[in-house]
Amino acid sequence: MHTHYDALEKNSANHIPLSPLSFLKQTADIFSDRTSVIYGTRSYTWRETEARVKRLASALQQRGIVKGDTVSVIAANTPELFEAHFGVPLAGAVLNTINYRLEPNTIAYILKHSDAKVLITDTGFSASVAEALAKLDHDILIIDIKDLQASDKHEKTQAPGKPLGEIDYEEFLASGDPDFPWQLPDDEWDALALNYTSGTSGRPKGVVYHHRGAYLMCLGTIPAWQLPRHPVYLYTVPMFHCNGWGHAWTITLLAGTIICCRAVSAPFVFDAIANHRVTHLGGAPIILSMLVNAPGSERREFGHPVKIMTAGAPPPPAVLEKTRALGFDVMQVYGLTETYGHVTHSLWREEWGELDFSTQAQRQSWQGVALPITDEAAILDLESRDYVPRDGQTQGEIAIRGNTVMKGYYKNPEATAEAFQDNWFLSGDAAVWHDNGYIQIRDRLKDVIISGGENVSSVEVEAVFYKHPAVAAAAVVAMPDEKWGEVPCAFLELMPGATLDAAEAIAFCREHLAGFKTPKKVIFGELPKTATGKIKKFELREQFRT
Amino acid sequence: MHTHYDALEKNSANHIPLSPLSFLKQTADIFSDRTSVIYGTRSYTWRETEARVKRLASALQQRGIVKGDTVSVIAANTPELFEAHFGVPLAGAVLNTINYRLEPNTIAYILKHSDAKVLITDTGFSASVAEALAKLDHDILIIDIKDLQASDKHEKTQAPGKPLGEIDYEEFLASGDPDFPWQLPDDEWDALALNYTSGTSGRPKGVVYHHRGAYLMCLGTIPAWQLPRHPVYLYTVPMFHCNGWGHAWTITLLAGTIICCRAVSAPFVFDAIANHRVTHLGGAPIILSMLVNAPGSERREFGHPVKIMTAGAPPPPAVLEKTRALGFDVMQVYGLTETYGHVTHSLWREEWGELDFSTQAQRQSWQGVALPITDEAAILDLESRDYVPRDGQTQGEIAIRGNTVMKGYYKNPEATAEAFQDNWFLSGDAAVWHDNGYIQIRDRLKDVIISGGENVSSVEVEAVFYKHPAVAAAAVVAMPDEKWGEVPCAFLELMPGATLDAAEAIAFCREHLAGFKTPKKVIFGELPKTATGKIKKFELREQFRT
Repeated sequence: MHTHYDALEKNSANHIPLSPLSFLKQTADIFSDRTSVIYGTRSYTWRETEARVKRLASALQQRGIVKGDTVSVIAANTPELFEAHFGVPLAGAVLNTINYRLEPNTIAYILKHSDAKVLITDTGFSASVAEALAKLDHDILIIDIKDLQASDKHEKTQAPGKPLGEIDYEEFLASGDPDFPWQLPDDEWDALALNYTSGTSGRPKGVVYHHRGAYLMCLGTIPAWQLPRHPVYLYTVPMFHCNGWGHAWTITLLAGTIICCRAVSAPFVFDAIANHRVTHLGGAPIILSMLVNAPGSERREFGHPVKIMTAGAPPPPAVLEKTRALGFDVMQVYGLTETYGHVTHSLWREEWGELDFSTQAQRQSWQGVALPITDEAAILDLESRDYVPRDGQTQGEIAIRGNTVMKGYYKNPEATAEAFQDNWFLSGDAAVWHDNGYIQIRDRLKDVIISGGENVSSVEVEAVFYKHPAVAAAAVVAMPDEKWGEVPCAFLELMPGATLDAAEAIAFCREHLAGFKTPKKVIFGELPKTATGKIKKFELREQFRT
Repeated sequence: MHTHYDALEKNSANHIPLSPLSFLKQTADIFSDRTSVIYGTRSYTWRETEARVKRLASALQQRGIVKGDTVSVIAANTPELFEAHFGVPLAGAVLNTINYRLEPNTIAYILKHSDAKVLITDTGFSASVAEALAKLDHDILIIDIKDLQASDKHEKTQAPGKPLGEIDYEEFLASGDPDFPWQLPDDEWDALALNYTSGTSGRPKGVVYHHRGAYLMCLGTIPAWQLPRHPVYLYTVPMFHCNGWGHAWTITLLAGTIICCRAVSAPFVFDAIANHRVTHLGGAPIILSMLVNAPGSERREFGHPVKIMTAGAPPPPAVLEKTRALGFDVMQVYGLTETYGHVTHSLWREEWGELDFSTQAQRQSWQGVALPITDEAAILDLESRDYVPRDGQTQGEIAIRGNTVMKGYYKNPEATAEAFQDNWFLSGDAAVWHDNGYIQIRDRLKDVIISGGENVSSVEVEAVFYKHPAVAAAAVVAMPDEKWGEVPCAFLELMPGATLDAAEAIAFCREHLAGFKTPKKVIFGELPKTATGKIKKFELREQFRT
């Protein structure tokens, strides 16, 4: 029914597209002289960051980049990658960050599939990137990040490598206009970022984020993590993962300071906390183990509270207890690339204060409840898609509904249709529901292994083993690991009479795959199969439970 | 240009209407046993609040209320008014809260103009409401709130008065379904609330809020006010003003506890702080003066920090100093009914810590900078509509752009068109812009007086004086007042030979107008006029500057 209320229409003063670009526009205006980013000996103010971002956007447009073009970046967590989170969308383009640990084949696949027009690439990764570029058949503008601090003492990674492009990032910025005007997207549903994730199939899928989702993700993270004004945030989460859990944008909203971080090590983290008074950081559970296992010589004292957001395999109670003793306050979150990162969090309940420590640690390791901006994170029966009972026992699939769910997969309508069913986004994770509404993951329904925060497709690793002449059947599953959360473990059935040892199998795999995808353990023997010949992976995973 | 990104469409899992209804749905689920609302001897848990809200929505629908209908409420800050903030929109209807201090004529006007189908009314205000209802010519369902605590010792207001309707609020709730399903609006742009505000003309205008704006207002208030999880909020701001600055919804999001408050007095506030450990409250500057001027016998000690959000005339430095000494942390905000309340805030800057106290107090009294969810709060030249320089001197009009700007005025396209010009919402407030981007109000361009947080239309008060046979010309302007921020002051020019004294003039006015609209001072004499005979109100206001 039409009422008088319906006569009131949207206009340009009362309906503004939601976009994280707004955060930098405002912070650079109000806190222009505060420090935005620190990276080794480099540091910037918000005014400087704004000028660099505007130069980047302007330079991209001068090179012909228009709305809806893809700009790829292969970089460590340096200021350039942070700047790209604003500069690329300000140019109207879509930011495609690529994991620099991927094998050249996969990098080439992503650059092709994403229709990337530009690649900004850190010369530290030139070896793989050059190999990937050799496989490309379309023109692409290459811009080199020459990181002079790439061989810093704490950082055991790459010294600056060979430039691959026609222009250096700083020269490229110099060609842009520092007064390029702020411009929000025409529509908050416009694409903002494209993040490839390994799923159950061998080829990664391109998850498309929209401006609206990223904006709300940031606003929702503030109450969820109780973020104050001016946090000092150490960027240990790779920005190429779900745009670093959206923290690049969130910390900007709060006019905080971001400490960049090329490679994470315990002394680096302790130094950053002590020297820069870091208040917040995030990371896979490996970050926690790294900190608690650091020798006394690498530790530094700090007198202020430090909050850690962690995701992935729940940290063991012993690790949680030690992190607390060191002065860290850990919050477990859960999410997927498809949900911009965290959509649930193990929100602390006052009544937990009464529990003994090991029960507390168990509660804290649950995936928890929806963030304020998540409409629903529910557990559904696999068949009926009804809610399962909240009995802490009945297993179902985690399903999500909210504004921080992706637009869909880029150029992949089949996968998009499979992910969205019955008005839900289906996570592929099996979980139980406790009576207080907290979710606890029990198993994975899809063949994905999460190792040190990286998604590994079992199918992709198995495909490599099937290429080996000695292998008759291969199954790769997640094996719990104290350091990495999970690591791939391969179960191999050999051809009659063939021989292969674990070291040979691992070396063969490493030739074709990135290190994090290579199994850490190989077990030989006949594989359990169903009547129809399908390998019973569930039984293999069960071995690690006991 | 159409790209592959555009092919990805919204669906019911990735695009959810933004609505404050989501907050109660989530909080009632996760923190069902926490205390939601306390009012005297009554208190509820979030589960109970949810059931009462659902009963209200269900009972309204059973009585034929459908989407886009208006439901009016005349009530103090009791649990019923809080519940209406969720129950009315859950029924699909629009919540119209009415200031119970208004004169019966104006209440009747609002009930007519708003097309109200239902009126929920506190019997404490039955005298005025009955008079208003007598003037109505359309059918309206009356539901009585019988507040048994209306004559509580702290509360000098109305004892429960005569019921006016056919059903009592509690009976009405009992007729509803406590399991009524949660339902978000079809569209986040749908109308949520209708708040009448006195503008420059005599008749109040109906400001229409949408769900999207209220949702974002709440999320933006969290970083702006640094709200923690589980705040204990004392509701001293009337919920009939801009829906109590949106705090009813915000505190729900944070699973806090709301202390209801029929009438505000210093002992009541101190008792609530000490007994319930109130952490946050809001109010016009009169709240601050009331607290600092309370005699020692009315004060209570409290050992925790209490934050106060205040709006309206800036508190004098002496008052600020005393509130600090009592343990209060005051933040000045600025906004209008048209902007859902606060759109700017005097965000504390670290460098202010170095300043002497009186300069700090001055900075804190500025209207400040945009909230994170406000796109822009700017000062524009009155003629050119360009930004004025940030020199702390050049005066212009505060103009606002953001998602917390109203849809428009209900059934008033002329006023709507006047408010929205050149892609801005024009506030009617004159201000200067400091070099750090902070706004400071200097004058009011429109004839509105803000007294104790209430808008008073000068024109309406003048119209009353013009009815008096002795008055030749009348001008009513704002006079600074330590208690109320501003009070109306009347300048009267009498007919030749006529006599009238101040007490008679005030008594005449009070017969026709609510107490807060009645001038506290009357000055007789010839009024300054322009060549064309227009009264130079600016000159009259200037008198109070010096």
